[in-house]
Amino acid sequence: MVSQNLAAELIETAEAMADAARSAILPYFRAADLQADNKLASGFDPVTEADRAAERAMRAILAKRRPTDAILGEEYGHQEGSSGLIWVLDPIDGTRGFLSGTPTWGVLIAVSNDTGPILGIVDQPYIGERVIGGLGKAEWRGPHGGGDLRTRTTQSLDQAILFTTFPKVGTEQERLSFHRVAEQVKLVRYGMDCYAYALLAMGQVDLVIEAGLNAYDIQGPIGVIEAAGGIVTNWQGEPAYEGGQVIAAANAKIYAEALAVLQKQR
Amino acid sequence: MVSQNLAAELIETAEAMADAARSAILPYFRAADLQADNKLASGFDPVTEADRAAERAMRAILAKRRPTDAILGEEYGHQEGSSGLIWVLDPIDGTRGFLSGTPTWGVLIAVSNDTGPILGIVDQPYIGERVIGGLGKAEWRGPHGGGDLRTRTTQSLDQAILFTTFPKVGTEQERLSFHRVAEQVKLVRYGMDCYAYALLAMGQVDLVIEAGLNAYDIQGPIGVIEAAGGIVTNWQGEPAYEGGQVIAAANAKIYAEALAVLQKQR
Repeated sequence: MVSQNLAAELIETAEAMADAARSAILPYFRAADLQADNKLASGFDPVTEADRAAERAMRAILAKRRPTDAILGEEYGHQEGSSGLIWVLDPIDGTRGFLSGTPTWGVLIAVSNDTGPILGIVDQPYIGERVIGGLGKAEWRGPHGGGDLRTRTTQSLDQAILFTTFPKVGTEQERLSFHRVAEQVKLVRYGMDCYAYALLAMGQVDLVIEAGLNAYDIQGPIGVIEAAGGIVTNWQGEPAYEGGQVIAAANAKIYAEALAVLQKQR
Repeated sequence: MVSQNLAAELIETAEAMADAARSAILPYFRAADLQADNKLASGFDPVTEADRAAERAMRAILAKRRPTDAILGEEYGHQEGSSGLIWVLDPIDGTRGFLSGTPTWGVLIAVSNDTGPILGIVDQPYIGERVIGGLGKAEWRGPHGGGDLRTRTTQSLDQAILFTTFPKVGTEQERLSFHRVAEQVKLVRYGMDCYAYALLAMGQVDLVIEAGLNAYDIQGPIGVIEAAGGIVTNWQGEPAYEGGQVIAAANAKIYAEALAVLQKQR
């Protein structure tokens, strides 16, 4: 159990980290062409630079406010801690989206204990949209207001909206499994990166199915989706916080239906 | 030739129409679930309602300011005019994106004469981003500022970023042609609807290839992309303003390369 005081401190810290990551990343977004024209020979990589700057900014806040927590970040790896809590950070999830100028990448932040995420943030700096869930909080804020997180109540697969980022999904076997589900839903959409998980938590879509994820790709999303009433596991129905194959669903009914189709043997 | 006075009037009218469409549509965006819960039996369709409200708002402005121009709109069809100009309107391009809560749909507005679009707007109301090009104007404005429209200078297909909305593209033949190009580029992304054309005009991506479009899907994009220095034709290299198969490219070099691959016979 996390005390109310600790919960408030963790939420405040996570929000401050997301704010810092926004400030660090936005100067790089859509500046790639400009820089590439000027510095072609130096091999400037705006995504890596933006990633690193954002992760450093977030780690600086943790060093000050939560020095005994562990950290796992995509850019700077693992740092030991002694508190029993670990911050799992992906400063820019959706590199390809970032490089293409699409506002579907995001900053992912999770606080986890040994049972998985207890708090998650998915933040889209360009739109100015933040989804935060866990430790008693479940809310989103965007450019035209905000509200509570609550997943959809869709009760059958043929009414469901399904997202994945890449049409190839993962291996050929994974693609075939995905497409068995895709054939049964109302609508399939591609290319949204972590924004799809935010949409699921906001009650806009019913399913996100992906493969080949890392822990830092999914722990932030797990935090917000569980807080919104959704379910996230791997394709075997086990905890997904270590990454790999992931299915995220709006409710137990749609989860069970989709998982059964995903697991069916041809 | 269009006089400076007329150009200014058309631009001002188009901006006012885009503003009116924003106000008409935003109350419906992401409200679908709420409404569907309340009015399931009545078959409420928020997209159609939003579409219609936005097109009515735009037509009301034209009735007042430009009563002798013709109009072609997705929802209310064709209205004759006598000025030689026609407004081509898609109040919500990207219905499936709209229904999924993704901010990649847009309001498309074009002013065209008998040679095609002379002014175009692609507007994303939720993000608050507008791209406008033609009649001497070529600019974008977004939540963090804006700038001039200018397409990329990418000189070879293997460095290009390619977008299309649906992995299936169109017919099986069209899909195969698309995939010949897709195999040669650096990066392929899906699912962006008209936002992909805006990204091309803003210099973020190099190619958009689609099939099965209507006139109102492509005339707004043609206006902004041509003003930004890009090229839009059909897959035969002819004018694309009537819709069908479309290739939009950042510059002449990348256009020629992609078109050659698209047209290659197996």
